[in-house]
Amino acid sequence: MTVDPRLSINQATIKYADLATALKVTADAGVQSIGLWREPVNEVGLDTAAKMLADSGLRFSTHCRGGFFTLPEGSERRASIDDNRRAIDETAALAAAGAEGSTAVLVLVAGGLPEGSRDLVGARSRVHDALTELAPYAQEAGVTLAIEPLHPMFGSDRCVVSTLGQALDLAADFDPSVVGAAVDTFHIWWDPQVYEQIARAGREGRISTYQVCDWKTPLPADVLLSRHYMGDGVIDFASLTRAVVETGYDRDIEVEIFNQEVWDTDPATVVARTAESFAETVSPYL
Amino acid sequence: MTVDPRLSINQATIKYADLATALKVTADAGVQSIGLWREPVNEVGLDTAAKMLADSGLRFSTHCRGGFFTLPEGSERRASIDDNRRAIDETAALAAAGAEGSTAVLVLVAGGLPEGSRDLVGARSRVHDALTELAPYAQEAGVTLAIEPLHPMFGSDRCVVSTLGQALDLAADFDPSVVGAAVDTFHIWWDPQVYEQIARAGREGRISTYQVCDWKTPLPADVLLSRHYMGDGVIDFASLTRAVVETGYDRDIEVEIFNQEVWDTDPATVVARTAESFAETVSPYL
Repeated sequence: MTVDPRLSINQATIKYADLATALKVTADAGVQSIGLWREPVNEVGLDTAAKMLADSGLRFSTHCRGGFFTLPEGSERRASIDDNRRAIDETAALAAAGAEGSTAVLVLVAGGLPEGSRDLVGARSRVHDALTELAPYAQEAGVTLAIEPLHPMFGSDRCVVSTLGQALDLAADFDPSVVGAAVDTFHIWWDPQVYEQIARAGREGRISTYQVCDWKTPLPADVLLSRHYMGDGVIDFASLTRAVVETGYDRDIEVEIFNQEVWDTDPATVVARTAESFAETVSPYL
Repeated sequence: MTVDPRLSINQATIKYADLATALKVTADAGVQSIGLWREPVNEVGLDTAAKMLADSGLRFSTHCRGGFFTLPEGSERRASIDDNRRAIDETAALAAAGAEGSTAVLVLVAGGLPEGSRDLVGARSRVHDALTELAPYAQEAGVTLAIEPLHPMFGSDRCVVSTLGQALDLAADFDPSVVGAAVDTFHIWWDPQVYEQIARAGREGRISTYQVCDWKTPLPADVLLSRHYMGDGVIDFASLTRAVVETGYDRDIEVEIFNQEVWDTDPATVVARTAESFAETVSPYL
């Protein structure tokens, strides 16, 4: 089987693999690109991780993840902003170490409502404040901050940014090379405005990354783990991929699956199955 | 404690109570209004149910529920349309039997994607087709069809209408007295456009019913049962209720809680707790 050259394996899909294993199984499968997570990178240290990535010959597509911007001012918020600066540094270093065509994109999850709060409007305004604070640092580093709208079922405890349109509204005050949006099928497939907002994101130059995985019910007890291989659920990858491609998006496309059964499977098997699923559901529309 | 005169108990909140019990515990608690479900009504028969409702002295606020309009043409779709005609008849009869101030509102759940389908756009167009077919019948009966947008976590298996804006777009081709929308806090609290869409619904005369209950995480294994008493979760009832009131909405306000623990509690206790929760979280903003 030919592996699609634009496929990128997001490391969360093979969550239990350490960095060395993740790089090896991805490259061995003939996949050309990988998206990394901060924890396994920091487990070996940034310099070592960058060297390992360079040695793998893989492109680097995104770094996951920064964000968690909804706390009011105070030491915890300061710690979070500082941590995001480190994440920006990591993103720049890894993008520089990856093969040609790597992209310096840091995926941001906005954060949920602070404990005891019912003020979504206030939480969202603090996300904007954090972007304002971090944008100059990201610009200096050549990193794009990709706001990721999460499915509304995570709207209270994880991410107060729930639609692509809302992410684009948040991004509007910033240069598109500095603040964009993550377009993840799992989070936005249901949105009646999804096609118009993908087209808008394209026009505004803000599709920082396109990520795919499928939605299926019933949801598992932990809804965070309800992602599936493309084709196993109900998402219309043909229409969504066509919409993204029509905007001119020509970068890598990540597969990010949080799923206990997938995590419990041998990572090489998962990467092979992911490549197959991608070839069947996404590649025909590229 | 004084019970708010606008509180209506949706029968699903006391799901295991039969119609006689539901009417009795609601009236005994000093609540003035009730929303009924088709199954317990049909268990005793419509004529008997109407008489029991009249005898209770309660107002009737909504009938739950019709809809399930996403199947393609065929015998199953025909059966569903016919069943909705019966639901319209029931709604008219019950609204006529209820105390002064009763409203003839049939709540509609659009239905999910048909088995094996990934075509949300097609499913949504079939919802519009069904409304077109049923609207004259509803108008003749004096019944308002209330499209209920359901939380996007139900977008594939239960309801392809996921936002209030989308419900209003669907309703736009019909007279507001015939097709409106259900504004249920549980389903729409997360929506970044919720306030503008509530205002729009008001301007367009389409708030057919306002329903309240709370959202809390972690979600239970069956996400359908993740509703809570107001105040136990994160929903901002002050802002949402003010927004609804500002449109001029002056009808009953239903509490509809699907929650196994609530269902396992004595119904009189549930009604008392509901009235208390309503008085604390909603009444101050009416």
